[in-house]
Amino acid sequence: MSQAEINFYLAKISADLDRTVDFWLKHSHDTELGGFFNCLTRTGDVFDTTKFVWLQGRQVWTYCQLARATDDVSKKEALLAAAIVAGDFLLAHAKQPDTDKCHFSLTRDGLAVKTQRTVFSETFFALAMIGLAQTTGQEKYKDEAKRMLDTIIHWVMEDGTGTGAVSLPGTPKLASLAHPMILLNLTTEAEKVFGLNSYETQAKWAINQLFKHVQRDGTCVLENITLDGKEFSGSAIGRHQNPGHAIEGAWFIMDWANGRTADKDLIRRAIDSFLLIPFEVGWDKEFGGIFSFLDADGLEPLPLEWSMKLWWAHAEAMIAFLMAFVETGNEIHWQKFKLVADYVYDHTKFTENGSGTSTGKENEPIPTKGCPSRVVSMSHDVY
Amino acid sequence: MSQAEINFYLAKISADLDRTVDFWLKHSHDTELGGFFNCLTRTGDVFDTTKFVWLQGRQVWTYCQLARATDDVSKKEALLAAAIVAGDFLLAHAKQPDTDKCHFSLTRDGLAVKTQRTVFSETFFALAMIGLAQTTGQEKYKDEAKRMLDTIIHWVMEDGTGTGAVSLPGTPKLASLAHPMILLNLTTEAEKVFGLNSYETQAKWAINQLFKHVQRDGTCVLENITLDGKEFSGSAIGRHQNPGHAIEGAWFIMDWANGRTADKDLIRRAIDSFLLIPFEVGWDKEFGGIFSFLDADGLEPLPLEWSMKLWWAHAEAMIAFLMAFVETGNEIHWQKFKLVADYVYDHTKFTENGSGTSTGKENEPIPTKGCPSRVVSMSHDVY
Repeated sequence: MSQAEINFYLAKISADLDRTVDFWLKHSHDTELGGFFNCLTRTGDVFDTTKFVWLQGRQVWTYCQLARATDDVSKKEALLAAAIVAGDFLLAHAKQPDTDKCHFSLTRDGLAVKTQRTVFSETFFALAMIGLAQTTGQEKYKDEAKRMLDTIIHWVMEDGTGTGAVSLPGTPKLASLAHPMILLNLTTEAEKVFGLNSYETQAKWAINQLFKHVQRDGTCVLENITLDGKEFSGSAIGRHQNPGHAIEGAWFIMDWANGRTADKDLIRRAIDSFLLIPFEVGWDKEFGGIFSFLDADGLEPLPLEWSMKLWWAHAEAMIAFLMAFVETGNEIHWQKFKLVADYVYDHTKFTENGSGTSTGKENEPIPTKGCPSRVVSMSHDVY
Repeated sequence: MSQAEINFYLAKISADLDRTVDFWLKHSHDTELGGFFNCLTRTGDVFDTTKFVWLQGRQVWTYCQLARATDDVSKKEALLAAAIVAGDFLLAHAKQPDTDKCHFSLTRDGLAVKTQRTVFSETFFALAMIGLAQTTGQEKYKDEAKRMLDTIIHWVMEDGTGTGAVSLPGTPKLASLAHPMILLNLTTEAEKVFGLNSYETQAKWAINQLFKHVQRDGTCVLENITLDGKEFSGSAIGRHQNPGHAIEGAWFIMDWANGRTADKDLIRRAIDSFLLIPFEVGWDKEFGGIFSFLDADGLEPLPLEWSMKLWWAHAEAMIAFLMAFVETGNEIHWQKFKLVADYVYDHTKFTENGSGTSTGKENEPIPTKGCPSRVVSMSHDVY
């Protein structure tokens, strides 16, 4: 690794970031009815006016971070203004009137289309409010962030019935990796508003839960385990692995530990269990790229798209390896970052319009829809 | 087309059918707790003990048809005995105690794992009962078939709230292709038990509904349309095309019309609108095979797996082109059947164990899980 190498990737990623952000700034704002258009063609046309709460919340948070990071005053103002409009759109339409339950998707004018029996629309609503609270300092957003975060903590740590999740007599009682992961990310972000250690109990609970998913003598991270921390046997759901998700968990842990002193051991454990092993398991040795899903026994996973290489997992890996390199100075992590970055650049065509699109060849990363928050996260958190 | 060509494909498909059925007979029966194991590896090991009601119902119906078709007395008895055991497993466990609502999946011993807010678990329950009524003549199965069919007719034609489907203020009110399709298939099968024309009103309603999905001056079949029969604009869901599904609709209509005289015009319209156009739209001109999903404006469809070539769609096309050839004698339909059949045989490795598995190459059909009912249907209905 040399400074020239670092500069090479920094220049590449910075240019992509600028182009991508300009694209979403130009095409995704619904200046008539508020909020963002999430479904844009490569040339910026809206191909579906549905407003997805996950993507709205992510884009608000992303804009807030960008507004704080940029030195360009007019861009800063444009980003923050759009974030406020979209945050207020979420406040007006995303929640059911009498509860904190959020909808999954809305019509262009904010009517509820679909509600999921999960906690994730709420987490991205909370993230939007945290971002706005952090960036504007307004009490309104702080209150909303605090309230939704408390609800999520209650649902995840105490009683999930408020999510509407249905448990039938044969429904397996399982702990998912997603819940502690999202809670850790939220509390890490919330502490930037409410002060270091304001959510320490919850963050430590989440980290403890995450490590329970490291199974089979530390050789794999299972997405779903029993409530007493064992492998759920006899079912594909118990052997389910999502390497990109585990790798995301690695940098969530590092990100939290990063604000603390004397947590070098936790960072090392996060790298070993959640970054190196899932990457080794998930990397396609033949064609390159990270598989979406794998079965711990090597059987064909149930999701049809298991072998697809999705953009988001590669972004998580690039962030995580860079963070690991910064934390440890270990050249191996830099080399792995390069491996993933080179794969992404070799297999993805970034159009002039800013969004990454696939090249139509075999085994390539497929872009997610919506404003790519992780690109921002990558450049903001690491450089 | 020559008789030698017909014999060639007949021999190939017959051998596959025998091998496949033997595989499921040998490995899929849960002789301890009843019902079928749906998730088998290539060597017949059970990799997940979950019992899916769709697949249980299909396998019961398939076994009933095979039992009626085979001249091998011991195989006939084995098939019918297993169908009865699994049918009784469904009777004991698939339905909610006080309603006709069926669960989507069950534990190995029959506890409810998951319930969907749709009508499809119920349709495969009904199909199982129709098959058992047809094959055993027992009143018990006739009564169950009639009752479930009446419930489905009520849900599809009058009031769907019994399915548990939630409609929010912004949920688009759409008519799906799946509802009239499944109703037409069910009524066609039910008339074999309850007499020709016993469900004529419902079948004709279903056919009339199906043709409303032919949109844009007859150039495409849209999966979802408005309740007054128009294209639902501004949303990917309104432009959604599922070519294999439309082609399945073609042979459902032909199958129904087949039992009637003077319906040559309907058969011609079914072939034109639901077979030839969706096949032309859905066939991959570069690599061959039928795409899973397409957008009517040529945009990238939202489902990640849109470009995958799934086995079931190819089976539907083989059935439909053979039926069209039998009905019309038009050589073009035979050539299309050959095109699809040759593609399937070139890209699918049929293992000694009977189940079709993918060869690991690009653009190949991927097998569905569970006993493949359409293979049976193909040989039973056409030859």
